[in-house]
Amino acid sequence: MRIMLIGGDGYLGWPTALHLSQRGHDVLIVDNLVRRSYDHEIGAHSLTSITSLQGRVAAWYAVSGKHIDVAIGDICDYSFFEGVFTSFMPDAVVHFGEQRSAPYSMIDRRHAVYTQHNNVIGTLNLLYAIAEHAPDCHLVKLGTMGEYGTPNIDIEEGYITITHNGRTDTLPYPKQPGSFYHLSKVHDSHNIMFACRVWGIRATDLNQGVVYGLETAETMLDPRLITRFDYDGIFGTALNRFMVQAVIGMPLTVYGQGGQTRGFLDIRDTLACVELALNTPAARGEFRVFNQFTEQFNVLQLATLVRDAAAAHGMQATIQHLDNPRVEKETHYYNAAHSKLIDLGLQPHFLSDTLIDSVMHIVYAHRDQVRPELVLPLVNWRQTSSPLSHTPS
Amino acid sequence: MRIMLIGGDGYLGWPTALHLSQRGHDVLIVDNLVRRSYDHEIGAHSLTSITSLQGRVAAWYAVSGKHIDVAIGDICDYSFFEGVFTSFMPDAVVHFGEQRSAPYSMIDRRHAVYTQHNNVIGTLNLLYAIAEHAPDCHLVKLGTMGEYGTPNIDIEEGYITITHNGRTDTLPYPKQPGSFYHLSKVHDSHNIMFACRVWGIRATDLNQGVVYGLETAETMLDPRLITRFDYDGIFGTALNRFMVQAVIGMPLTVYGQGGQTRGFLDIRDTLACVELALNTPAARGEFRVFNQFTEQFNVLQLATLVRDAAAAHGMQATIQHLDNPRVEKETHYYNAAHSKLIDLGLQPHFLSDTLIDSVMHIVYAHRDQVRPELVLPLVNWRQTSSPLSHTPS
Repeated sequence: MRIMLIGGDGYLGWPTALHLSQRGHDVLIVDNLVRRSYDHEIGAHSLTSITSLQGRVAAWYAVSGKHIDVAIGDICDYSFFEGVFTSFMPDAVVHFGEQRSAPYSMIDRRHAVYTQHNNVIGTLNLLYAIAEHAPDCHLVKLGTMGEYGTPNIDIEEGYITITHNGRTDTLPYPKQPGSFYHLSKVHDSHNIMFACRVWGIRATDLNQGVVYGLETAETMLDPRLITRFDYDGIFGTALNRFMVQAVIGMPLTVYGQGGQTRGFLDIRDTLACVELALNTPAARGEFRVFNQFTEQFNVLQLATLVRDAAAAHGMQATIQHLDNPRVEKETHYYNAAHSKLIDLGLQPHFLSDTLIDSVMHIVYAHRDQVRPELVLPLVNWRQTSSPLSHTPS
Repeated sequence: MRIMLIGGDGYLGWPTALHLSQRGHDVLIVDNLVRRSYDHEIGAHSLTSITSLQGRVAAWYAVSGKHIDVAIGDICDYSFFEGVFTSFMPDAVVHFGEQRSAPYSMIDRRHAVYTQHNNVIGTLNLLYAIAEHAPDCHLVKLGTMGEYGTPNIDIEEGYITITHNGRTDTLPYPKQPGSFYHLSKVHDSHNIMFACRVWGIRATDLNQGVVYGLETAETMLDPRLITRFDYDGIFGTALNRFMVQAVIGMPLTVYGQGGQTRGFLDIRDTLACVELALNTPAARGEFRVFNQFTEQFNVLQLATLVRDAAAAHGMQATIQHLDNPRVEKETHYYNAAHSKLIDLGLQPHFLSDTLIDSVMHIVYAHRDQVRPELVLPLVNWRQTSSPLSHTPS
């Protein structure tokens, strides 16, 4: 299959590119490398030392004998993107190429506007390229479980059947996203659903949970193939931050009460899910939604898991509750369907102490590179600017 | 009240500005005059002769002795908009300032991107200006009934209470918009709801139906105060096009079977609804949604009404069905709640033969200016470009 992988230089995009290349697909990475620029902007860094994209691709060729092609540019620039698209003519596009941090989108107005413009217009351009030039191409789009928010009823996979005043219809599941980033993904979902309806294109929206883990079968083949590990308050997930805090002897900082429950999955399951979606494409005109996670945890449970795993290695970690910088429910019902990918054959990995151990081993090995000041939150949802605004107040 | 009226040069914005000024409010119109540019772009025109915005405001002063202030600029340009906002410091903002044509948004990729960028980013800027500078300010935002699409259950006003698997919650009503324009309003609604939640601002989303009519108490005071009347295939509504077709002896062109049902309201009711919303503002943190229409009709009913009204004046009109350029259901259930504005005191005008007569009288008076070629549809939802693309294919 000819697969265009947008955002193939990022945390998940790169291991996905390797995985699909290893499976024998022709992979073209399209990336504007902006994820590396975000690091420069906020003064953060990947705890793992990642190679340049060109270096990664060269290393992959050295290791596997397989070529991954690269086009450096911005999908919001249609004159660039249309040229790349029509010369490659993909059978499928996997779209990881969006700004994916909620706190980044909440830094200030400029970052909110950037996030929504970048994500929504980039995806619009992609939809037009598919409809105009390759209407049979399958779009596999990374959404987020955060599109649903935390309703007090079960979350379904994209649609819900509602009986109301004696009539019944199956409608898009109501969305209550919790940041301008999450909102951008809701906007995308609506746009993509419409494009499937009017143009008959095929799309799978992977509403992904929080991904953990670093190593995949392919990245482990060579140190130059490792993917990024973010632990800063902007791009690092709670689990990553807790692991780093445990290793350097900081308290594990839980936002608020810690009852916020979310779906999680192993990075290897992300790769498997994308592959499963590609291998069984959506039908022409179908907008298919999969909830892509394997287990639910709340934040306090994660902190406890990390604390206990650390204790097993002689590191005494404590848990500290911070005022929640986000506006979100801290205790709530949460039960989200996630059977469609299982039905397609997904065999989940689970977040066991062993796995925390395995990632923590890498974190421990890099403990001297940790900059503790990066871990704490700098962006408050209730404020319209932050110390990262870099704009006159 | 100090009222900022964004889009105050448009079909509804201008009569609303007059109405609020007449009521004694301090009105500032913010407009980039792009509605007039759309006419130049697509080669269309208002059937009524509208004066320049500066001329309109001067005429209003001559007639009423009241000043309406004007700031010419683009709300997507925050350096302009923030300055205007902070020097005026509104008590309320009425936001009509969006690209509001579904066919315009479907001309091609460039127009889809323009529409979503212009509408979503403009409203984002407005939300930030309110949160940063006037958090008590009430946002009255023009949405559209088209956000809901045509579900097979009753449409409620913004929210729906769902019981599912034994649990119950009240959630945002699921949206199924039918064009990139309608999608932009759905995006806005989600963004505004979030801003109310995190910043505690107050907002009323007026999900408006199709507006008909031309004359209001204020516009009738002087010919220079008349508002625009669009009959072209891009900005003209079905009702306007039918009236023009009847007057010039063209068949009334119904898209498809004509069973498409929508909500409608008189222009005088639009003004009353905006005023009612302003006089009873949403609470801090509240995202309030009103469905703003008074009657439901389907397209064939409208055509029949116009045909019969024309016949009463000796004009023999026929009805012709065209292939539907849109992708939409042509026969469907439609029952939308619209009681909240009635509860606030709205006294509806109804689309009687008399009213059609009254508008048709103006159309008849301008029949020599009609350019018949403008009436027919040029934009097909199933295609990614149109004769209006003006881009190399």
